[in-house]
Amino acid sequence: MTTYQEATSVTPQGDGEYAVRLAEEYSFGEAVNGGYLMGVLLRAAVAESPHAHPLTTAASFLRPAQPGPAQVVVEPRKTGRTAATARVSLVQNGKPIVDAMVTTGTLDPTSEPAYQGERPPIPPIEECRPSGHDRSGFVAQVDMRFDPAVMGWLDGEPSGRPEMRAHFRLASGEDPDPYVLALALDALVPVVVNTGNVGWSPTVDLTWHLRALPAPGWLTVHGGGRLVRDGWNDEDVEIWDSSGTLVAQSRQLARTARTRK
Amino acid sequence: MTTYQEATSVTPQGDGEYAVRLAEEYSFGEAVNGGYLMGVLLRAAVAESPHAHPLTTAASFLRPAQPGPAQVVVEPRKTGRTAATARVSLVQNGKPIVDAMVTTGTLDPTSEPAYQGERPPIPPIEECRPSGHDRSGFVAQVDMRFDPAVMGWLDGEPSGRPEMRAHFRLASGEDPDPYVLALALDALVPVVVNTGNVGWSPTVDLTWHLRALPAPGWLTVHGGGRLVRDGWNDEDVEIWDSSGTLVAQSRQLARTARTRK
Repeated sequence: MTTYQEATSVTPQGDGEYAVRLAEEYSFGEAVNGGYLMGVLLRAAVAESPHAHPLTTAASFLRPAQPGPAQVVVEPRKTGRTAATARVSLVQNGKPIVDAMVTTGTLDPTSEPAYQGERPPIPPIEECRPSGHDRSGFVAQVDMRFDPAVMGWLDGEPSGRPEMRAHFRLASGEDPDPYVLALALDALVPVVVNTGNVGWSPTVDLTWHLRALPAPGWLTVHGGGRLVRDGWNDEDVEIWDSSGTLVAQSRQLARTARTRK
Repeated sequence: MTTYQEATSVTPQGDGEYAVRLAEEYSFGEAVNGGYLMGVLLRAAVAESPHAHPLTTAASFLRPAQPGPAQVVVEPRKTGRTAATARVSLVQNGKPIVDAMVTTGTLDPTSEPAYQGERPPIPPIEECRPSGHDRSGFVAQVDMRFDPAVMGWLDGEPSGRPEMRAHFRLASGEDPDPYVLALALDALVPVVVNTGNVGWSPTVDLTWHLRALPAPGWLTVHGGGRLVRDGWNDEDVEIWDSSGTLVAQSRQLARTARTRK
């Protein structure tokens, strides 16, 4: 089995360019998973930065990517002592696939929160269940256990609120790092299945913040949303690690699936 | 008095370039307000797009801007029927000040929410109070009435949670539009004053989504946060309009002020 670390590796070509190979294993249907694409893109962004961690990533998903060769192009825009910001693009066949603004910095793993909000509730892992999808492609790379309370949509009984939550780890057994968080943030079933919008719900823009380096073990991934309107919906995701720390926050704007069950 | 519309106007120069003049009235201390800079940048982004509204803006604040001449450069990256995405930069003296990814689209003002979360509470305007700061520069352009419950920090009694909320309108009497929302999203006193972090708290990255076109009248602006850690904090803002619609959502990552009262 290819590890996630191998599948997201990048090879420097000089001048801020990196050669990558998008892995078939992280595709779902005909397109490569967006969280995985962010993972690849961020490896290049950090390799090109004097800092160690991708603090903020604002990604626009312009076109679907196919498995196979691609390039990441990093263009520094400001490099400071605390943070550095770059434009980063994943390009395939001469076209931009994902355009991002990435701010890197170096987090202190020993820092303690001055304030941390409450961790959202989720049942213990033994009361949660696998998604039940095909265990091939992207889905085979991750081990997710969903809260049964948000999975009634499978039986035509959505909860009525945009929500989704699960325990998450890589099937390979690799422990989480910032690149795994990028994958986990976009791995949930779309929250709008619980407002009856089941179908293709493509992400247009996703911004996420790395807030702390994750401890080893399972993550919990908590998705919600505030508004479904005019063919658009927001999806907010928090990831908490096994030590009870909020490690990542994201918000995406997505096209809302049109099908209503 | 210069209107906000005049202060954010842009003049096309061809090839996606726009000449702008950053207004002294929107400065605070030595730098021009970040929300105002987004308003200017977004006027150019929309002028260059086939669509009418700035749906998503992911902005990196690289350097402070000074009042006076500047340029906005718009580089289309994908133009589709539903949405168009561009790289947009505000440049001054040859240096990028704000780099953004902007996705434009056209919202339907008659659309009704399929789902909308609850509006956060705020006392009625007559129970709220002006910030009490100097009425010059940026502060003179806006009329904000703060919930007294989040203003104890002025007397050394912060609430202990990252939070801030106020009623908002332009002092000029202009009704809100998407560019006014850009201003309002970054107009609050930083939420971390209520965790005792009073001082300069610069925004590094701010992403916001326009969710609906605002109705005329006052807006309510609700700020919160989830984590203050390692010198960084998130600030989440929702704006609701006078008709009870969630019209804008933002999240920013900011350097947390070091001073603790």
